[in-house]
Amino acid sequence: MSRGSLTPGASPGFTESPGSLPISRLSFNQITAERASLKEVVDACARHGVPYVAVWRHKLAEVGVKAAACLLRDAGVRVSSVCRGGMFPAATGEERAARIEDNRRAVDEAAALGAGVLVLVCGAAPDKDIAAARRMVADGIAALVPYARERGVRLGIEPMHPGFAADRSCITTLQEARCLAERFDLSTVGVVADVYHIWWDPELYDQLARAAGRLVGFHVSDWLVPVRDILMNRGMMGDGVIELRRIREAVERTGYAGPIEVEIFNHGVWDTPLDILVPLVKERYLACV
Amino acid sequence: MSRGSLTPGASPGFTESPGSLPISRLSFNQITAERASLKEVVDACARHGVPYVAVWRHKLAEVGVKAAACLLRDAGVRVSSVCRGGMFPAATGEERAARIEDNRRAVDEAAALGAGVLVLVCGAAPDKDIAAARRMVADGIAALVPYARERGVRLGIEPMHPGFAADRSCITTLQEARCLAERFDLSTVGVVADVYHIWWDPELYDQLARAAGRLVGFHVSDWLVPVRDILMNRGMMGDGVIELRRIREAVERTGYAGPIEVEIFNHGVWDTPLDILVPLVKERYLACV
Repeated sequence: MSRGSLTPGASPGFTESPGSLPISRLSFNQITAERASLKEVVDACARHGVPYVAVWRHKLAEVGVKAAACLLRDAGVRVSSVCRGGMFPAATGEERAARIEDNRRAVDEAAALGAGVLVLVCGAAPDKDIAAARRMVADGIAALVPYARERGVRLGIEPMHPGFAADRSCITTLQEARCLAERFDLSTVGVVADVYHIWWDPELYDQLARAAGRLVGFHVSDWLVPVRDILMNRGMMGDGVIELRRIREAVERTGYAGPIEVEIFNHGVWDTPLDILVPLVKERYLACV
Repeated sequence: MSRGSLTPGASPGFTESPGSLPISRLSFNQITAERASLKEVVDACARHGVPYVAVWRHKLAEVGVKAAACLLRDAGVRVSSVCRGGMFPAATGEERAARIEDNRRAVDEAAALGAGVLVLVCGAAPDKDIAAARRMVADGIAALVPYARERGVRLGIEPMHPGFAADRSCITTLQEARCLAERFDLSTVGVVADVYHIWWDPELYDQLARAAGRLVGFHVSDWLVPVRDILMNRGMMGDGVIELRRIREAVERTGYAGPIEVEIFNHGVWDTPLDILVPLVKERYLACV
């Protein structure tokens, strides 16, 4: 498992393989090029024939929603999702209300960009009470649903790896995310499956099957070995231990046929120039996913 | 959540609290003082009235089993468990057989030290196939069971945090560990519950209840925030986000009344002199567990 074969074509094994996905489903999640601006990412995607981007709100704030919508339209690049809403648990009712209000702004932004999905990173407990945090997440989503429904934006609950349970999300498994989503109507609340967060789950394939009809996003990267910093441990598809093809095929059996986002937090990836990185992402997507 | 209040009595909140455990159940897991020898740890436990230690094999190898048994007997300190057996998956049948043979030596050592339990850290896949690795674990335990049964040593399957799924154990949840244990007789194969590995699980309390009668060990530490290196992210009880008292009470409802091991991988803890560390462990055990 190499940590950094970041040169396109470096390995003859990484060419389009039988059963490859069409490029028409590829989305470049903006965090994969954290050091670039939205315009730089969108232009690179247009230049290299990547049809979708996933947009992060901190990058969107740098240009503003109107300018972003223009540059996306001009480039002919669509938005697969906006990252991220969520972060519902907080110590006070006032702070929780403020976060729900911020989530409404995220819904507005997703609607303005024509993104069908707002990804929810649900948030961690403000204290030790993870059960209470889970209730705050359910309450927050319930408060957000009518607003999202009116604007035609689906909320995608992303279960996160248990390594993030105290920092980013108390919702840690596909089963938990699906059961939470099932409290709401199918057309407004779904589940986002990210291989990095779910690959280890002994119930992975059962739970994917049960999520049929509820998946609203699929994210790919890889899990590098050995593990160092758990946030930055993602790798380019093919460089780690995740059975990407097997998981993707299980996701397809659920009926999900939407964009597939490549989302990689990795300093080596972030240091790679866009005109090397975007072709490499395409190559690995075709060869490994 | 402080990362390092390693001074006994530093906080007036950390005194014996209502519902405290008896010291008679406390075990000092040797890895909590990784830089000390077995003799140093055993002597410190004797000096400070800690009745049990958990012994690691790499430390045991430094003195030999006979000398270790003598020094434990002389000090009047008992062994709660030997760490660790397991690591069953490997790329070749020859290597898997060698690992089972090594596990038999671990059973011998546990028997020689009067330890009732050999903790199994089951191992990770040698490649990307985590399902195959799980089968190798089941096969390895099946091969080991008759030998362990004859020697009166129970095998304790320890589910590990999913952050270790590619490095240390493909067995990641209490449910998975219990279902695996249930393939074997109750008197030979059980489950070890370590709060660090299981605290995040949305099914934690249900799964603990289902493990009634199968628990053969309970390990405590804490989960520090923010997470850095996932291996070394453990903290002293009370310094992190784990609801230790609540989990311990759930463990007691399963009927488990055996030793409670304090097992902390943390460089700050490892740098603390034993005559400060052992009293602090006692204090936090009484106040927080």
